[in-house]
Amino acid sequence: MARAKDDKAMRAARAKKTAHKIQKMAQETLKEVTAEENPAISIPVRALSNVSFNERSRLIELGDRAQSREFFNVSMAKKFMQSFLVASACKEHLLETGKTTSIRDLYYMTKHTIKKSKENTFDDQSESDPIIEDLEVALDALREELHLFAAKRGSMVGPIVVVDAGDEIDLSRMGSGGWGVPSITEDYMIQFKSSKAKFILLVEKEAVWHRLNEDKFWKKHQCALITGNGQATRGVRRLLQRMSKELKIPLYVLVDNDPWGLYIYSVIKQGSIKLAYESMRMAVPSARFLGLRTSDFKRFGLSDDVKIELTKEDANRAKQMLAYPWFAKKQWQKEINDLLKAKFKMEIEALSNKDISFVTDVYIPKKIASHDYLV
Amino acid sequence: MARAKDDKAMRAARAKKTAHKIQKMAQETLKEVTAEENPAISIPVRALSNVSFNERSRLIELGDRAQSREFFNVSMAKKFMQSFLVASACKEHLLETGKTTSIRDLYYMTKHTIKKSKENTFDDQSESDPIIEDLEVALDALREELHLFAAKRGSMVGPIVVVDAGDEIDLSRMGSGGWGVPSITEDYMIQFKSSKAKFILLVEKEAVWHRLNEDKFWKKHQCALITGNGQATRGVRRLLQRMSKELKIPLYVLVDNDPWGLYIYSVIKQGSIKLAYESMRMAVPSARFLGLRTSDFKRFGLSDDVKIELTKEDANRAKQMLAYPWFAKKQWQKEINDLLKAKFKMEIEALSNKDISFVTDVYIPKKIASHDYLV
Repeated sequence: MARAKDDKAMRAARAKKTAHKIQKMAQETLKEVTAEENPAISIPVRALSNVSFNERSRLIELGDRAQSREFFNVSMAKKFMQSFLVASACKEHLLETGKTTSIRDLYYMTKHTIKKSKENTFDDQSESDPIIEDLEVALDALREELHLFAAKRGSMVGPIVVVDAGDEIDLSRMGSGGWGVPSITEDYMIQFKSSKAKFILLVEKEAVWHRLNEDKFWKKHQCALITGNGQATRGVRRLLQRMSKELKIPLYVLVDNDPWGLYIYSVIKQGSIKLAYESMRMAVPSARFLGLRTSDFKRFGLSDDVKIELTKEDANRAKQMLAYPWFAKKQWQKEINDLLKAKFKMEIEALSNKDISFVTDVYIPKKIASHDYLV
Repeated sequence: MARAKDDKAMRAARAKKTAHKIQKMAQETLKEVTAEENPAISIPVRALSNVSFNERSRLIELGDRAQSREFFNVSMAKKFMQSFLVASACKEHLLETGKTTSIRDLYYMTKHTIKKSKENTFDDQSESDPIIEDLEVALDALREELHLFAAKRGSMVGPIVVVDAGDEIDLSRMGSGGWGVPSITEDYMIQFKSSKAKFILLVEKEAVWHRLNEDKFWKKHQCALITGNGQATRGVRRLLQRMSKELKIPLYVLVDNDPWGLYIYSVIKQGSIKLAYESMRMAVPSARFLGLRTSDFKRFGLSDDVKIELTKEDANRAKQMLAYPWFAKKQWQKEINDLLKAKFKMEIEALSNKDISFVTDVYIPKKIASHDYLV
């Protein structure tokens, strides 16, 4: 359990460390300029060709291939400039002031027309976002460490007391609304002061989270109940990993019975291809898949009414998943093939067709008690 | 200020009242059946033709026209059955158990194949959602009173203590995440225990909310700081109306400078055409428009970099708005025409082009202090 002391000092120290990385990058470049060399920064390649699944750690990881981004190269000069512009804004306006901001905001902060020209530093956010990702890998610092964040989404309740920006918050007294999971959940922002949680339950759907919260599932079963409202944000994922490691409790994931549900689980478990460099800090390889599964249809005697026809896109997506090394295990191949053969998908809400609190009173407790989950 | 006592009893009494309305509707229908008449329920028409803008209350309101939904009518029989099916599920599974659920969940709860036929009660949620709206107007009970809700979204912080499902929550100690605004914010769910807030500030963008929260704007200016993450949910709107009435404080709305921002403001202020019947319980006619405005570009010396070209759709949408009676006032006509003439729109984040905390330190305080807002 992390101690909740002096998070401000911790945050300042961490910001200083990241700022130092930026400074080092700049100094090395300056040295090259002074030596009349072609200034360049080395940026690890973020492409499928440089991504692999590490069987031992069970994480999607980035390989060693890097590209040199050079100043004296017509195709690279603009990106070279942009990289330093973003790095400098993070250092000066965020890390040194202790402020954090959105990646959209950073785009506005760094956008301007270059003097004596009609050229903009950035024309669109789609230009600045990849530069941020480049910096993350080049500096080996997550965007959260650069004091940047994407969306905030998701809620949590449970027998846990957290410290958030210095405020002690008892998540067992959060009413029907819950605690809004922040965008940045690094240890210098959020600490766990105390916890009685025996496991974490992540549910894909906000409405299911509401059902479980209203039924006080988390109280009866002593768990942290969290939703990402669809795909989990980086803030939620980082929090899941930290709870899993620091509180040493298992994580169960409850998603819809469809390829999108499998994808949500898979990103939580081993990271994504696009952002392979963050898996180490975000993924929870031990995450347990609690369903919904095709076999649950028979097992829980569900009615035909809840079946939704699998679309062509669903089927194609599922077939792609069969080929992923992280779904190579027999049980996963069977699970995905079951879905394809059944030709229907189901939402978690399908369980309400039996009874409004079926998910709370029967489905989850039964599956957890009988260790009926996939990993 | 509402007292925070015995919310459970209040909730039960309110549920009983709504259940009674359903029972009354059913009993009247039964009487018609016994008398061998054609059973029918009267449902106010929810169409543009039956909607008007009340100049006095400044609300979009539903007119008196109603349609009789009859059992012995091929085109109405199914909807007649569906209406009672939904009403019965709300009464039996929600109101009588004290539980609340999502409209998607209700769809699953009421979906089944009719015995000895291949006919489903509902084939799709797009069939059950309008039935819920029908019942809301027929029973004069909002969906929240039927214990139903749509999405949950939005966060709040500020010098306010609320009671949510029995838990006292101090919104001035909510860290960086804030309190997740619940789906249902009726007075039997949420009470205001104490407040030092002098005004409410609603911001469209979650990232701007984060900026203001991190800068502790709400502490310095003693306000309730809330975001709807885009268009405000019903839960957020109801909470805004209740705070505005019960705490007797003004509401300021900060949105992007585009037709969508104007629309968000307009729905908060006088309700929407589609859901005109709920304006009375949701709208805040006194809401003050804090911008962003086209004139802010010059006023705050913003750079050309932050201009985004107005699309054809934007222009068409803005032209439509010119014709709405609630935008008939001279100042609104000028505002919308300014946007059309300028041919560019801007996001609130545009202010970050000046300085990351410009919105906190200059823009909002200056506008509020100089009463520079539109109503």
